[in-house]
Amino acid sequence: MASLLENEVFMAYTTYAAVVTLKMMLMGPMTSYFRITRSSFSNEEDVLGKSPEEKKKCMKSHPDVERVKRCHQNDLENVIPFVVIGLLYAATSPELSSALLHFRLFAGARIFHTIAYICVLPQPSRALSWMLGMLVTFSMAYNVLTAAAYF
Amino acid sequence: MASLLENEVFMAYTTYAAVVTLKMMLMGPMTSYFRITRSSFSNEEDVLGKSPEEKKKCMKSHPDVERVKRCHQNDLENVIPFVVIGLLYAATSPELSSALLHFRLFAGARIFHTIAYICVLPQPSRALSWMLGMLVTFSMAYNVLTAAAYF
Amino acid sequence: MASLLENEVFMAYTTYAAVVTLKMMLMGPMTSYFRITRSSFSNEEDVLGKSPEEKKKCMKSHPDVERVKRCHQNDLENVIPFVVIGLLYAATSPELSSALLHFRLFAGARIFHTIAYICVLPQPSRALSWMLGMLVTFSMAYNVLTAAAYF
Repeated sequence: MASLLENEVFMAYTTYAAVVTLKMMLMGPMTSYFRITRSSFSNEEDVLGKSPEEKKKCMKSHPDVERVKRCHQNDLENVIPFVVIGLLYAATSPELSSALLHFRLFAGARIFHTIAYICVLPQPSRALSWMLGMLVTFSMAYNVLTAAAYF
Repeated sequence: MASLLENEVFMAYTTYAAVVTLKMMLMGPMTSYFRITRSSFSNEEDVLGKSPEEKKKCMKSHPDVERVKRCHQNDLENVIPFVVIGLLYAATSPELSSALLHFRLFAGARIFHTIAYICVLPQPSRALSWMLGMLVTFSMAYNVLTAAAYF
Repeated sequence: MASLLENEVFMAYTTYAAVVTLKMMLMGPMTSYFRITRSSFSNEEDVLGKSPEEKKKCMKSHPDVERVKRCHQNDLENVIPFVVIGLLYAATSPELSSALLHFRLFAGARIFHTIAYICVLPQPSRALSWMLGMLVTFSMAYNVLTAAAYF
């Protein structure tokens, strides 16, 4: 199995898959941060020891928390397909330069997407970075299905 | 690594994993389509340049958008476990015919599930296709754990 | 490909990845169970054959259903990154004892997290088990990136 890491395409996949997965995971602590600073929780047990009035206030949703959650959800919907399709793509032995182009474009697009979402950059910045990420994954899927279609 | 694609079970896995992942990804653009045609958005920056009254109207949720989002979420909850368990299952060297049966049933069930969800087919069509997809994944997981349990 | 299952680290990965993925999948039927026992549905077609008044009542959200859904969502956000990073980690040929420690800690933390979430155990039990799971995945990601960084 060690031989996988002697394959440069697989090493590049490993690196970029780890990077975008870590980026996605960081949305979790970021949600916690916004929940605490904006005092907006979803679970009764998270606001114990407060007065009933304060409790009710803390159980309301806050626009900033909802925004981070939408960004996290968008990551789940886009980063995970990239990780899946990317692994299948790496297994089709593509050119290293072509693989790196796909991986770098996707990682860049998703990091920019998060910045555009959280910092509320004007549209169409968020829409374009989302589309670029999708196109990269579709391009890899096209390569996978032409190399290994077996229905 | 090229040898993976000389293995027929792995080629079949690659094909069906790519198909169901692509199907799941298409829910993203479909959500965008419903958001635009139903004028229902979640982000302030998506409705810039409209009058405050129109803005408020566009920020309301719409039942069709919510339906696509629930369908997408159900895909995340079912397709991703299939992709994960399916890869482990393919690594246990199952019979090709048995593997193809699992993969085809799952892909068919999930494609029908999406149609049943979006076109609002009468129940229990959606429930049954959801259950069939789950059963396929459970069956593969059973095969994985009997072949490779190592706690 | 059969050789993957002669590798003990990969066998351990296979076992624990299957276990946590199955645990995550069980949240689906659990949501169904709560939806039916609490009479709380999201789709019109799920409450056919009821009087309009009863229908309206059945389409309201119920705190128990929302809780299971949040728990399921948290699983998606944490278990899938573990499965992805864990596979890359297993490919870096770590020590078996070190790999088992990571996998066991994560599986234990997530099973406890679900119990803490559904049974409403007092905080910080849920928060700590969530953090432990995250730390395990970050530790594996650190190992992956030091073994295979290729930008």
